[in-house]
Amino acid sequence: MVVRCGVIGLGYWGPNLVRNISASSATQLVGICDQDAAKCEALRRQYAAPVVTYDPHDLFNSPMIDALFIATPVATHYSLALSALRSGKHVFVEKPLTSDVAQAEHLVSEAERLGLTLMVDHVFVYNPAVQKIRELISTNMLGQILYYDSVRVNLGLFQHDVSVIWDLIVHDLSIVDYIIDERPTAVLTNARAHVIGQPENIAYMTCIFASQMIAHFHVNWLAPVKVRRTLVGGSRRMIVYDDLEPDEKIKVYDRGVDITQAEPDQIGLQFGYRLGDMFAPMLRRTEALKTAVEHFAECVRTGTSPITDGQCGLRTVRLLEAASRSAQNGGSAVAVGA
Amino acid sequence: MVVRCGVIGLGYWGPNLVRNISASSATQLVGICDQDAAKCEALRRQYAAPVVTYDPHDLFNSPMIDALFIATPVATHYSLALSALRSGKHVFVEKPLTSDVAQAEHLVSEAERLGLTLMVDHVFVYNPAVQKIRELISTNMLGQILYYDSVRVNLGLFQHDVSVIWDLIVHDLSIVDYIIDERPTAVLTNARAHVIGQPENIAYMTCIFASQMIAHFHVNWLAPVKVRRTLVGGSRRMIVYDDLEPDEKIKVYDRGVDITQAEPDQIGLQFGYRLGDMFAPMLRRTEALKTAVEHFAECVRTGTSPITDGQCGLRTVRLLEAASRSAQNGGSAVAVGA
Amino acid sequence: MVVRCGVIGLGYWGPNLVRNISASSATQLVGICDQDAAKCEALRRQYAAPVVTYDPHDLFNSPMIDALFIATPVATHYSLALSALRSGKHVFVEKPLTSDVAQAEHLVSEAERLGLTLMVDHVFVYNPAVQKIRELISTNMLGQILYYDSVRVNLGLFQHDVSVIWDLIVHDLSIVDYIIDERPTAVLTNARAHVIGQPENIAYMTCIFASQMIAHFHVNWLAPVKVRRTLVGGSRRMIVYDDLEPDEKIKVYDRGVDITQAEPDQIGLQFGYRLGDMFAPMLRRTEALKTAVEHFAECVRTGTSPITDGQCGLRTVRLLEAASRSAQNGGSAVAVGA
Amino acid sequence: MVVRCGVIGLGYWGPNLVRNISASSATQLVGICDQDAAKCEALRRQYAAPVVTYDPHDLFNSPMIDALFIATPVATHYSLALSALRSGKHVFVEKPLTSDVAQAEHLVSEAERLGLTLMVDHVFVYNPAVQKIRELISTNMLGQILYYDSVRVNLGLFQHDVSVIWDLIVHDLSIVDYIIDERPTAVLTNARAHVIGQPENIAYMTCIFASQMIAHFHVNWLAPVKVRRTLVGGSRRMIVYDDLEPDEKIKVYDRGVDITQAEPDQIGLQFGYRLGDMFAPMLRRTEALKTAVEHFAECVRTGTSPITDGQCGLRTVRLLEAASRSAQNGGSAVAVGA
Repeated sequence: MVVRCGVIGLGYWGPNLVRNISASSATQLVGICDQDAAKCEALRRQYAAPVVTYDPHDLFNSPMIDALFIATPVATHYSLALSALRSGKHVFVEKPLTSDVAQAEHLVSEAERLGLTLMVDHVFVYNPAVQKIRELISTNMLGQILYYDSVRVNLGLFQHDVSVIWDLIVHDLSIVDYIIDERPTAVLTNARAHVIGQPENIAYMTCIFASQMIAHFHVNWLAPVKVRRTLVGGSRRMIVYDDLEPDEKIKVYDRGVDITQAEPDQIGLQFGYRLGDMFAPMLRRTEALKTAVEHFAECVRTGTSPITDGQCGLRTVRLLEAASRSAQNGGSAVAVGA
Repeated sequence: MVVRCGVIGLGYWGPNLVRNISASSATQLVGICDQDAAKCEALRRQYAAPVVTYDPHDLFNSPMIDALFIATPVATHYSLALSALRSGKHVFVEKPLTSDVAQAEHLVSEAERLGLTLMVDHVFVYNPAVQKIRELISTNMLGQILYYDSVRVNLGLFQHDVSVIWDLIVHDLSIVDYIIDERPTAVLTNARAHVIGQPENIAYMTCIFASQMIAHFHVNWLAPVKVRRTLVGGSRRMIVYDDLEPDEKIKVYDRGVDITQAEPDQIGLQFGYRLGDMFAPMLRRTEALKTAVEHFAECVRTGTSPITDGQCGLRTVRLLEAASRSAQNGGSAVAVGA
Repeated sequence: MVVRCGVIGLGYWGPNLVRNISASSATQLVGICDQDAAKCEALRRQYAAPVVTYDPHDLFNSPMIDALFIATPVATHYSLALSALRSGKHVFVEKPLTSDVAQAEHLVSEAERLGLTLMVDHVFVYNPAVQKIRELISTNMLGQILYYDSVRVNLGLFQHDVSVIWDLIVHDLSIVDYIIDERPTAVLTNARAHVIGQPENIAYMTCIFASQMIAHFHVNWLAPVKVRRTLVGGSRRMIVYDDLEPDEKIKVYDRGVDITQAEPDQIGLQFGYRLGDMFAPMLRRTEALKTAVEHFAECVRTGTSPITDGQCGLRTVRLLEAASRSAQNGGSAVAVGA
Repeated sequence: MVVRCGVIGLGYWGPNLVRNISASSATQLVGICDQDAAKCEALRRQYAAPVVTYDPHDLFNSPMIDALFIATPVATHYSLALSALRSGKHVFVEKPLTSDVAQAEHLVSEAERLGLTLMVDHVFVYNPAVQKIRELISTNMLGQILYYDSVRVNLGLFQHDVSVIWDLIVHDLSIVDYIIDERPTAVLTNARAHVIGQPENIAYMTCIFASQMIAHFHVNWLAPVKVRRTLVGGSRRMIVYDDLEPDEKIKVYDRGVDITQAEPDQIGLQFGYRLGDMFAPMLRRTEALKTAVEHFAECVRTGTSPITDGQCGLRTVRLLEAASRSAQNGGSAVAVGA
C-alpha cells in the first residue's frame, strides 16, 4: 500500500517534504497547500500534484489522502494537526510538535484515541551519523557517558515566531532523547534577544541528570559562521560529530579516563588518561528526511509506533518549556517533571 | 639597565620563562629554583644560570636579583610572592594571581606599599591576535559587542591543585577584561568532576553584564580534541579567533545585524541581516610570553604599571571565586561586587 | 519565448539538466530520452514531461522541441549532436564536446552553416567562484599570472568510456581557457592505468605558455579523499580556490613578489616578498548549471554566441587530444597548434 | 660514551641542531662556528659552548670534538665535509648531501676509506609519521603501491643558492627512498624561475618506475599558503599524510580497488572499488631532528651505518641532478642510472 500524502506549508522545509514524498515509492504526493499562491505555483511546475490549494480543509476532506505533513509555523501546528487527526488522517508534524505542553498532551491523546499515527519530524534521529552514535553508545563502545556538548550556530535564519531555543535546541534535545537513556531532571538556560522586538537569538542551555552526566547546548542565530559540532564524552571513548563534514562526520577517539582511579601515572598523562587511535566509521549516505518519511509510511501501513512518536515530541516540548522559563528568570534551574 | 631575574618553579611553564628571559636582551637569567633537582639539572645543562637552588630563599636573598618569576602551583603563589616583595624584588606571577580574593588584595597592597612592580602573567593579553581584537573593538570596527563565546578544551592536562575553572577559564576572563570595557555583574557556572577525588574537569560559565552583552566559556580537560576557538559578535562585524590556526588566527566577517530594526526585508535575509566579505588581518608572529616578559622588564625599569597589574589579577580572582561558588550551588547566579 | 527542451541521456548528469530545465521559467521540459526504461520512469514520476522515449529520433523529429541537451557517453556526442543540428535543433552538449578534434570541427562548422546555437557544458565557467576569479584577474588585482595549479581527485567515479584526462582535466582546461587570455603552446602529460582493462585513472598534465606562465593539473580517480583545490599565483596577489568549502570558496591573499627585483631585503623576507592580509569575497549562491542552462536559453532566443560555444569546446578537445598523445609517448611535450 | 659535537653554520637550521645536541644526553655541545659573529653571539647567550669561532678549522683541529654537523649553504657542504673527514671527524651533513654526484661519490668513498660515519640529514626519515607509513607499507597494509603524490608549497623561504628542486624535492625523494623498495628509472621535471636572477621557484617532478608505480612532487616557494600534504595510494588501502596537522597527521583509508578485476559491480561503485572506514594511528611526538641526532650518535658509538648514510645521500643527489637536467631541457625524460 502506497501512503497517499498531502503537505501543508510550503515555506522553507515543505519543499523538502514534497521532494521526498514524490521520489519515494512508499508514498504518493496527492496534495499541496499554502496560503501563498506563488509557492504553490513554483512546486506545481515541478511536481505532479493533483490537488493544489490554499485551504487546508481541501486536504482534510479529501478521500484521496491518507496522511498529512504539517510544515507551517509552530503556532499553527496544534490546530492543524488536531483538525487533520479528527479528519481521520495520520499526521507528520515538523519540530517542535507544538508551542506548549498542554497542546502536545492533547494531540498525543487524540491520536491514541483515534488510532492514528502521530509522528514528529525530529529529523536528526534519522540521520546516519546520529544513528551510528546511538549504536556506539548502546554497544558500550563509549563506556559511561560523561557529557554531551553541542554547538549549533549560524547567521541569518531568524525565525519570526519562535526563539532560537525552540528553533535549534529542539534538535539537540531530540538527539539526546534518542541516544541517551537517562532523562534530564532540571535545566538552566541563559538567553539574549539582541534585536529589538525579536525573540532570543542566542542561548546557552544546560541539562542536569541524576547521574554525573551533563549536557550543554550553544545555539546562536547571530554567529558569523555555521557550526554544527557535537562532542560526546565517554569514560572509554569519545566522539566528535561534525555535521558539516562531507565525509567523516563522526570521529571516534580511543581516548578516555579511568574515572575510578585517582593516582597519577608516571609517564606524562595523569589519572589514567589514555590517548589512542582515532577512527571514522563509514556512514550510509541516505538523506535523513527520506528515512523519516519512509519510516512514517511504514508506521502508517503497519500501525507500529514511530521512533519519534507523539510522546517523544511531548517530552521535548516539556524541556523547551522549562528552558524558556529558566531563560526568563535569569538562568536559574527549572526542574523537569516526568 | 638589564633586569636580573630568577625563576621559581620549573615544571610545565617555568622552562618557557627561563627560555625567554635567557633570550631577551632586556633580561638576564641569574637564578633558577625548584624542589626537584632533576628539573634544575635539565635546565642547567642548557642555560647558563649562575644560581641553581632548591631553596627560594637563596633567590629572595640574592643581591644579584632584581625580579622574581613565580611559576609554582597556585596555592603557593601568595606566600612566595609575598616573601619576594618583602625581600624587595619585583614580582611576575603565573595566572591566576592567587587562590582567593583576600590573598590577591594583600599582594596588591603590599606591592603598592613597597613601590614594587607586581604583574600577573595573563599571557593571552600579550598575544598578537588578542591585541588585534582589542584594536578592532576600540576602533569600533565591530560596533556594539553582543557576545563573547569561547571554547577551550583538550585532553590530558589535568591539574592536581586547581579545577578547570581556575586553570582555563582564567584565560578567557583575562581576555574579556582586556578587550571589553564593561565588567560582569554576575556569573553562573555549571561544572562536573568526573574523576573521583579530582577537581572539576568540565565547566560552563556565563557572565552577565549590565548591557545586553553576554559572555560564555566552555572549558574541558576531558575532550577528545584540542579546541581554542572564540567568537566575538558585534552589531557591525564579527570575529572568529582560532588560536590553533597557524596563520589566519583571526577572521573578521563583515556580517552583522541592525539591532534597532525589526522589519524583515524582502530578499531573503531578515531583520537587517547583512552578509559580506571576510578578511584575515596579517598578525605579528611574536611569542606572547616574550612580549609579556619584555613588558614586565620595561615596567620594572620605568616604574610604570603593567597592563596586567595586581589589580587586574585581583579582578580576575574575584570572578573565579564567584564562578566556583556558583558551581557549588548548582549553577545559580552569584553577583560580583566592584 | 520559452525554449522548449529535450534531454537525451538520463545517467549521472542528465537528471540535473532535467531538474534545472524544469525549474527555470526560461525553459520548458518537453521530452526525455534514455535507452534504460527505469531511468525514464524514475524521472517521469517526478517531473511532468509530455514525451518520454527510448529513441532519440522521437525528439529530433518533434516539432514541440527547440533545443536538445545531450548527456550521453562522450563517444556518442558527435553523432547525436550532428543529428540534432540537422533536425534544426539548437544543441547543448555535455563536456567534452566530442571524442576528437575532427568531430568537434565538424560540429562547429555544421552549427555555423545551419545558424543554430551550439554550446558545450563547461559548467565551471558558470560557477560564481570561477567568475569571481576571472573578474579579479581581468581587473589586474592579481598582477601578472605566474601559475595555475589544480588538484581534482576523488575515489570511485570511474568512467568506462573515457580516461581521467577526458573526464576531469577537461574542467581545468575550460577554466584556464576562461580566466586566462593566453593559450598553451605545448602540453606534457604522464598518466597510469592501474586497473587492468580500464583507461588511465591518474594523470599529471603541464601546460606550457609563451610567457613564463605554467599550468598544472593533477587528476585522480583512485584517491582516498575528494579534493578540488586550485592555486592561482599572481605577481601581486594569489588565490586559493577550494570548491568543497561551503563558504569562502575563494581566498585572496595580498601576497606576492616583486618579480623584477632580485635584491634581498633586510627584514626577513627575501627578494621583495610581501605577506599581507587575506580576504574572502562573498559569492553568489547560484547553481552553476542553472546559470549555464539560462545562458543557453538566452543565446537561443537572441542568436548570440555562448561563452562556451563550439569553438571553445573545440579548443579544449584539441588540448585533450594533445594530452593523450603525450601520455602515450611517455610524457614528452606535444605542441598545440592554433 | 657521549659524542662531543661541533656545529658549523648557524643560519636557519643550525640553531635547531645546537638545541638538540645540547638537550640530549647522548651528545655534548663543544663548539659552534659561523662567519657571522652576531649569530655566534646569539647562541652563546643561550647555550654553554666552550668553543665559539668564525673559523671552521678551529673545530677541525680541536681534539675535544668527535663529530661535526654541517649546516652551511649547499655549495660548501663538499669541502667542509671533506676537511672534517680528513681531520678524523664523523660528519653529519644537512640535505642535500652535496651540489653534484661527483662530490657525493667522493665523500662516500672518503668516509668509507677513513672508517668514519657519514650521515645526511634527511630529517623526514626520522619523522614519526613517515616511520609509520613505512611500517604500514612493509606490513602490506596498503597492498601494492600505485602512487606517491606530494605537495610541498609555501611563501617566502627563497633560497639564494639552490633551486626549489634541491631545497624541497629533496625531502620527497628521501621519503620515497625510505618507504618504497623500488628505485626510479627516469624522471621528468618542469620548472619555472619567476623572479629575474633567481633560481627556479616552482617545479613539478614525476618519477617513473619499472612497475606501474608513479611518484609526483609539486614544490613551490611562491604559494600563498603552506601545504605539506602527501597521498600514498595502495591497492588495499590509501594514506593521506598532512604534516601540518597537529594531531592525526596520518589518516589511513580502508579504500582501494581490485586492480585485477575489470567488471563493474551492480551497486554503484565500479570495478571493485571499496569504500570503508578511516583510522588515524596515534603517533609518537618525538621531534624528528632529536631522533636523527641520537641515531647519528648511536652510529658513531657503534660503528653501524646510518639509515640515511652517504650512499642514501648519493642516490638522492643523483635524482636531483637528473631532475635539474630534465627541467633544463623542457621536461623530457632523463634516465637514472644505478
